[in-house]
Amino acid sequence: MQIRSHSHPYTVVEYGTLDAALAPPDGSGSTFYLVDQKIADLYGPQLVAAAPPERIHRIVASETAKSYEQLGPIFCWLLDGGCRRTSQLVVVGGGVLQDIGCFIASVLFRGIRWTLLPTTLLAQCDSCIGSKSSLNIHRFKNQLGTFYPPHEVRLAFEFLKTLSHEEILSGLGEAIKLHLIDGPESVKRLRAKLAAPPSEIPLHDIVRDSLRIKKRFIEEDEFDRGVRNLLNYGHTFAHALESATRYEIPHGIAVTVGLACATYFSERLGKVTAGSYDDLLAWLRPYFGNYVESVRRVDLTAVVGAMKQDKKNRGDEITFILTRGPGQMEKAGLSAHEALKLLADCRETL
Amino acid sequence: MQIRSHSHPYTVVEYGTLDAALAPPDGSGSTFYLVDQKIADLYGPQLVAAAPPERIHRIVASETAKSYEQLGPIFCWLLDGGCRRTSQLVVVGGGVLQDIGCFIASVLFRGIRWTLLPTTLLAQCDSCIGSKSSLNIHRFKNQLGTFYPPHEVRLAFEFLKTLSHEEILSGLGEAIKLHLIDGPESVKRLRAKLAAPPSEIPLHDIVRDSLRIKKRFIEEDEFDRGVRNLLNYGHTFAHALESATRYEIPHGIAVTVGLACATYFSERLGKVTAGSYDDLLAWLRPYFGNYVESVRRVDLTAVVGAMKQDKKNRGDEITFILTRGPGQMEKAGLSAHEALKLLADCRETL
Repeated sequence: MQIRSHSHPYTVVEYGTLDAALAPPDGSGSTFYLVDQKIADLYGPQLVAAAPPERIHRIVASETAKSYEQLGPIFCWLLDGGCRRTSQLVVVGGGVLQDIGCFIASVLFRGIRWTLLPTTLLAQCDSCIGSKSSLNIHRFKNQLGTFYPPHEVRLAFEFLKTLSHEEILSGLGEAIKLHLIDGPESVKRLRAKLAAPPSEIPLHDIVRDSLRIKKRFIEEDEFDRGVRNLLNYGHTFAHALESATRYEIPHGIAVTVGLACATYFSERLGKVTAGSYDDLLAWLRPYFGNYVESVRRVDLTAVVGAMKQDKKNRGDEITFILTRGPGQMEKAGLSAHEALKLLADCRETL
Repeated sequence: MQIRSHSHPYTVVEYGTLDAALAPPDGSGSTFYLVDQKIADLYGPQLVAAAPPERIHRIVASETAKSYEQLGPIFCWLLDGGCRRTSQLVVVGGGVLQDIGCFIASVLFRGIRWTLLPTTLLAQCDSCIGSKSSLNIHRFKNQLGTFYPPHEVRLAFEFLKTLSHEEILSGLGEAIKLHLIDGPESVKRLRAKLAAPPSEIPLHDIVRDSLRIKKRFIEEDEFDRGVRNLLNYGHTFAHALESATRYEIPHGIAVTVGLACATYFSERLGKVTAGSYDDLLAWLRPYFGNYVESVRRVDLTAVVGAMKQDKKNRGDEITFILTRGPGQMEKAGLSAHEALKLLADCRETL
């Protein structure tokens, strides 16, 4: 799959083996690896085969790791190690590693070549394309970033084998969001696939379908000024919930809660027919079931407070992406007061 | 003057009064000012008229100020002050302020609108267009940066009135470089203008001509992958000299030394006719005359050491932009050994 971008076109390529996926990309310069510590622990021998130890930097993936302040030592490691304008970065990990790698690759020498190996289901089926990075700074979440796609995205499905059940659910959360945005036919196909026993769910197919859906939005609106906003469906809720629960809920699972809330809001505002919410809830409850207690305990004023910080807001209103049904998402602004009330009502039904 | 760019076209507009130049640009969001401390001291009343004090951040311009580590508190000041995706930045100062402002504007919310008021002659006639930022990190100089032009460049010639003689010479150094790159006719016209008594040199004209020359290179090669490299004429020398003298030589003045060295190298390598160097030296000596002693004292091994760090180098050779005469610049790679020898010989003649 080839993807257009303002900076350069790039490809998503499937790799049959980890060795091939981890091999240094072609190029005249030296290659440096940024690797999620968990992946380095699980796939040590494959990494050793790919690069000498002094070319591998391990990062414990966390919200604090993807902060402006924490990137300083990584830049220095690269420069001390002889990284040049012709050097390349290979980034191996999930969303946090991607944020870190994308930002570094985009500002080092004003942009060097980089290759991304997404290792979580969420990264494979959603975040690995689209070229955005988000960094925290001080107490401010996701306020810094750049648009700078990798030069190649390498899909190695092998990585999915070592994911926990929860990480799979989290990835499927974003896949569900993408299929909801795409339309009723997509939703129908995905629901059928997900009805299979867990071990028989065709994850590779779901990754491919999800990327195909996302590709259309990011090519049309790479800089997130129009139609790409719809990819934030469920995310005003999800980001605020994650923030108010101090990131104890995995992102894609928070998204499934967000999708439910968005549909609840839409139904209450008369945008979808009665029953739409119950139908979606019946489908999604298994995804966030383990976190219902966290959602019940969370301080909703804190959730709405976090929503007020959302980058998408204009003026005093909170911007939500709501729905008139699969494939018919739209922006809507609500006051904090209104949002709090609907949210409290919605929570009663989860 | 309108300039094309990958991100957005932008204009260079002359403003007759400081009040007009400093006024907040149109736009729905709030405006934040980053201002060189020296300018804030000199033009306090005009600044007070432009913005409330809590919207103005003063920066003491220095090499250490334009470092990754020093930008953290500025981002926090902006975010604490309510800066949003729709907010704008107005940056008032010379090259250092521009580097800081450009980097911040490009990564805050993945890019916000910004307006640049260049206040030095060097910034007005050269750096204010071209969209590049350079930051230091730790002991590494100019290794980080972004391409992100302002949305408007506001030229207020009023600022030139409070510049020191040395700052004027420094700005003229870059103007001379641009005219040399442009060709013999340009050089002839500029030499005639510069032959006037200091108070009668038509600086505004020189700014306009310089920007017109630079525009052609940056529009053709915004990302500095080809012809734009020629704008680095004299700069391999200048950057290394500045580094080895701990930035005691103003940049544009170091560039005039660099232009002399480049011509010396070119003559020794048979690229220009005998006498070219003496002719140029006679023209340029008054510009760097006050710094000849610094140049004589500098450790040339340190200069060549700094040259080896240049981003433009490929392999083991140091990349120079040399010349076959005005308008005929070309890249050349020399070994460190060769460079040191020519440099030592050249210094004897300064």
